[in-house]
Amino acid sequence: MLKTELAEVETRLLEVTSAVPPDIAGMLRGIIDSGGKRLRPALVLLSAHLCQAPLAQAIPIAAAIEMLHTATLVHDDLIDAATLRRGKPTLNAHLSATPTVLAGDLLFARAAVLATEGQNLQLVRRFSATLEIICSGELNQFFIGRGHLPTCDEYERRIFAKTASLFALAMETGPHLAGSPVQQIAELAHFGALLGSAFQITDDVLDFVSDEATLGKPVGGDLQQGLVTLPVLIYQEQHPEDTRLSVLLHAPAGAGQLREFVADLYTSGAIEAAMTIADRRVKEALTILEHFPATPYRRAIEEIATFAVQRPY
Amino acid sequence: MLKTELAEVETRLLEVTSAVPPDIAGMLRGIIDSGGKRLRPALVLLSAHLCQAPLAQAIPIAAAIEMLHTATLVHDDLIDAATLRRGKPTLNAHLSATPTVLAGDLLFARAAVLATEGQNLQLVRRFSATLEIICSGELNQFFIGRGHLPTCDEYERRIFAKTASLFALAMETGPHLAGSPVQQIAELAHFGALLGSAFQITDDVLDFVSDEATLGKPVGGDLQQGLVTLPVLIYQEQHPEDTRLSVLLHAPAGAGQLREFVADLYTSGAIEAAMTIADRRVKEALTILEHFPATPYRRAIEEIATFAVQRPY
Repeated sequence: MLKTELAEVETRLLEVTSAVPPDIAGMLRGIIDSGGKRLRPALVLLSAHLCQAPLAQAIPIAAAIEMLHTATLVHDDLIDAATLRRGKPTLNAHLSATPTVLAGDLLFARAAVLATEGQNLQLVRRFSATLEIICSGELNQFFIGRGHLPTCDEYERRIFAKTASLFALAMETGPHLAGSPVQQIAELAHFGALLGSAFQITDDVLDFVSDEATLGKPVGGDLQQGLVTLPVLIYQEQHPEDTRLSVLLHAPAGAGQLREFVADLYTSGAIEAAMTIADRRVKEALTILEHFPATPYRRAIEEIATFAVQRPY
Repeated sequence: MLKTELAEVETRLLEVTSAVPPDIAGMLRGIIDSGGKRLRPALVLLSAHLCQAPLAQAIPIAAAIEMLHTATLVHDDLIDAATLRRGKPTLNAHLSATPTVLAGDLLFARAAVLATEGQNLQLVRRFSATLEIICSGELNQFFIGRGHLPTCDEYERRIFAKTASLFALAMETGPHLAGSPVQQIAELAHFGALLGSAFQITDDVLDFVSDEATLGKPVGGDLQQGLVTLPVLIYQEQHPEDTRLSVLLHAPAGAGQLREFVADLYTSGAIEAAMTIADRRVKEALTILEHFPATPYRRAIEEIATFAVQRPY
């Protein structure tokens, strides 16, 4: 449905490679082509269709949001010292820290340029504010460090900053560009935030239920890194007497200890409970869409939302 | 003259500290307070006065430009592994790479938010485009690496990206916000570019003529790092037979070798020749100001311009 428009987004994404020398261009092309599902640009375009906003303005915004996402991944991979992303080597796997920092910065800058090409100042403000939410979320996360069991509130704030905020921005692009009432902007932003948090919860669950080959890292890798996600929060609330978590949180556990804890997490029902929360958010999000005409575009958004919380096991 | 307005700029700069936990806030306050001369914000405010632009819009832009400058310094210091900046410890001197990368990113984001508060889409575009010029300049510089004798064109492009582009942006803020004719925007941007490049040439000269205590690094530190600046380019053009430079460029020289080369640079007149070029640019810049009414604001810009190329020896 969005084939031509998504192809234009790809073209806009690759423009960044024309402003730099060939070796940098090749490197940046690699990052951009390694792709991902282009979920965020698809949501931008669909929200534009939903509100009958001008597509010529939505396309650079779709590219801006994907570029911003890519820039954060480049710096994240550097920080996590990750060597694989989407099955391909990360930038920092074959470059030193310096060009990785600078390449991420350049992608942030390009994202900012693309954001202005939507020709809508209010949207550029929201774009910059979202970038700020993402960056301060990451800085917070770093300073909290390992060994901390977050409250549910803290977990919610973290996944909003990390994922849901950008989904919210993607979904509110349409009503902004269409000049829709404030109420509609707020509704679609709320839709995006619900969908984004459901998406992140599913991703967090995936870390426990997938296999090492798919993840490219050990099962329970988040926990191994000291990162507490929703299934663990639920388990710990059910089993306050289990002291293994605080041990796991303070230092990387042995593979055996980790496997044992993950096995108990499975049988406790905490994983299913986390997915039930994700499902509920998508259901709530879908009720928001009922205020919009039942077009094929609305149907496509509904499909993405349902797909986002498909049981990953 | 700009006391109240510059104080407001400081307030806007420090706002970033209120959105983050106390330990990060303290750290960011340290970076912002370590200050510098606030030359860029002063130019923004003066260009606004020069064109009778609304100051309420110029103040956030002044803060945005200084914040952008600060963000690039944070990442630069990390890259150069610098431990002192303006006589104070850099972020990376007491933090690891991760929070330094993230703090720089957060400052970029805040700069982008501030830029939108000027309420002028065209100016936000120019802001983002300038950020892109700065970042791609740095990435280029990194990939060129040491051991390369740049052409004059390459040197000009480098100092434009590094310094002059942001001075140009500062000076064109006034006419943008005042809705001045395109011609006037172009003229003041050109003024800023000339002033910025003169400023950078003077800074490059300073690296040879200052003393180690003032610089916080050895005299000739740029050359030691393999960075060729204008005095060296001029010397090499005068003395194509001197093969010491290519040796110096390929590997860090011993202190004795470096001192000897710098002494020859002195006596060759290359340093004075570089300053003559800087002077000429400021003179050319000042002729542009003649098209503007002779107000105290114009006089203040002229003073800054003259000050920028004061002999640092």
